[in-house]
Amino acid sequence: MSGVLHGVTWAGSYTDGHLVIVDQTRLPGTIIHRELSDLEAVREAIVSLAVRGAPAIGIAAAYGVVVHVRQAGHNDPSEACSHAIDRLGSSRPTAVNLAWALARMRRRCDLLAGGPDETVGRALLDEAQRIHDEDATLCNRIARHGAALLPAGGTVYTHCNTGALATGGVGTALGCIVAAHAAGAGIHVIAGETRPLLQGARLTVPELIHAGVPVALACDSAAGALMSQGRIQAVIVGADRIAANGDTANKIGTYGLAVLARHHRIPFIVAAPSSTFDLSMPDGRTMVIEERASAEVSAPFGARFAPAEAVVLNPAFDVTPAGLITALVTEHGVLAPPDAAGIARLTLAN
Amino acid sequence: MSGVLHGVTWAGSYTDGHLVIVDQTRLPGTIIHRELSDLEAVREAIVSLAVRGAPAIGIAAAYGVVVHVRQAGHNDPSEACSHAIDRLGSSRPTAVNLAWALARMRRRCDLLAGGPDETVGRALLDEAQRIHDEDATLCNRIARHGAALLPAGGTVYTHCNTGALATGGVGTALGCIVAAHAAGAGIHVIAGETRPLLQGARLTVPELIHAGVPVALACDSAAGALMSQGRIQAVIVGADRIAANGDTANKIGTYGLAVLARHHRIPFIVAAPSSTFDLSMPDGRTMVIEERASAEVSAPFGARFAPAEAVVLNPAFDVTPAGLITALVTEHGVLAPPDAAGIARLTLAN
Repeated sequence: MSGVLHGVTWAGSYTDGHLVIVDQTRLPGTIIHRELSDLEAVREAIVSLAVRGAPAIGIAAAYGVVVHVRQAGHNDPSEACSHAIDRLGSSRPTAVNLAWALARMRRRCDLLAGGPDETVGRALLDEAQRIHDEDATLCNRIARHGAALLPAGGTVYTHCNTGALATGGVGTALGCIVAAHAAGAGIHVIAGETRPLLQGARLTVPELIHAGVPVALACDSAAGALMSQGRIQAVIVGADRIAANGDTANKIGTYGLAVLARHHRIPFIVAAPSSTFDLSMPDGRTMVIEERASAEVSAPFGARFAPAEAVVLNPAFDVTPAGLITALVTEHGVLAPPDAAGIARLTLAN
Repeated sequence: MSGVLHGVTWAGSYTDGHLVIVDQTRLPGTIIHRELSDLEAVREAIVSLAVRGAPAIGIAAAYGVVVHVRQAGHNDPSEACSHAIDRLGSSRPTAVNLAWALARMRRRCDLLAGGPDETVGRALLDEAQRIHDEDATLCNRIARHGAALLPAGGTVYTHCNTGALATGGVGTALGCIVAAHAAGAGIHVIAGETRPLLQGARLTVPELIHAGVPVALACDSAAGALMSQGRIQAVIVGADRIAANGDTANKIGTYGLAVLARHHRIPFIVAAPSSTFDLSMPDGRTMVIEERASAEVSAPFGARFAPAEAVVLNPAFDVTPAGLITALVTEHGVLAPPDAAGIARLTLAN
């Protein structure tokens, strides 16, 4: 293999008590399938970003509940389900799809409380598979709606990874790009490398090369200069949590891109399934931003960049105010611009 | 050593036909002194960024002329000088201090044309040492003027490396920070890591730790979020070339920081010696921006981040319009804001 992933997805396949994933921390150099056979292994895979991307985290967590309840056997599946949900729910704080998927698992479990253990186990697996399958369908819808917003013949800038490795289907923002390409829009992509964990360089670039979409990699800090030179016609990103007013948490750097896009009058588009909405939050001010380990910045991937004693700020996400978002694409269509009234209509109607 | 540089400067010491430098591509992990004994070795050190920082490049190039003329011996020192200036002048295109220092060497050589070879050699060494010593003095003046602009008790964001490793003295932007600290201003620093070559992580953080200035390292893409949280009160950077109207070329990412600073109403300060002015350029539009090797982005420091076949955009610099610069600090004082009239007055008066 020449370094390009050939159609690898996040690959959450569940078989007989195991969740099998591709370890994304090793991509693109090495494709390692990991078999996760107990709850803590699934949790660790989410914490370490072996599985990442808001929708994929939700799916993996749902399967994680199944893995744990199966393993618990006849020891009170309802109790086992609750324990798994607690453990998995605390694995990462920012992406809301995790809590959303676990809430679905809890409801399904509660409906069957007191029933035969085997029925509960089958029902939980059914629910996890639905969450997985539905995500693939949602991705297709998001891709169709979002592709129409991308500038034919233009260059689209994207950040982090929002493709097949981040979801249960073709992706969110990256799905829109691939769909536009497939429809003959003739678009080019610039992928920001997305420090510290380089999901743009390691995951998005290989995914786009595999899909045949012309792509160039750039350092995150080059986005402003590229915009000022007229080399970017739109920015499209995913989301980890969207408040009731449209404020959006996403990978660190997203907010800066939104400010730069506004300065250059370039459309800034967010693409995410409606499971990313957190209507309990009126706006983005109360969103919990995960602070990750210093070593991701100072000594990533085995290379030491800064002295071991360096103090590091490593927020994994930032919050983009709705006012900087030109359009929000969900499976139900496009809100342009997103606002509280539009989001309320969209979530009530569906 | 625990990873912190203990007072290492760019260390351009000239002794008996050799220029000795610290190889900055190996910092902070390893301190390797390299002895550069011929013209091409000096040129390669500049091309590979073993020596970097606009003022330090100028000083190294001046010594490079001396090295070559000495080596040429009695074979027409004027011709040897011209050859060295041509070779060194083409080593890097953006920093103007390089051309400025070489022009001084050429003038000194031309004044002595036809004189005894030994006189020419001594005069060129004298000129290189003057350029070096003067830079130390300029740095002190810049530091004094710039320190007064930094917010007492506040946090200053800086980008790339503009300290003792980048100049012949205490630095430009970093000199201002260290001077403010020494004056008891109680400032904190956030250093952007400065991809692709990580001068912030590798050079600025160790320099500030050594100087006792509280510093935290962050990914470049975190600057926007940190500003929006009120955690940054000023941005200060150096410059590689400043046009007659104040438009400033500096390390890639500088322009984006300037846009973000303006959005958040945070002062954006440029600190550089007046040798950085290029009055032949009315504005920044015609500045040549160096495009460097793909591998700096896709496979830096021995770690492969992106597939080998990935197309990479790697502009080393960008141009910040004067209108986004709150204050320009030179050894002659502060222009706030910088404009063509102020720059003309400043350069005519000095």
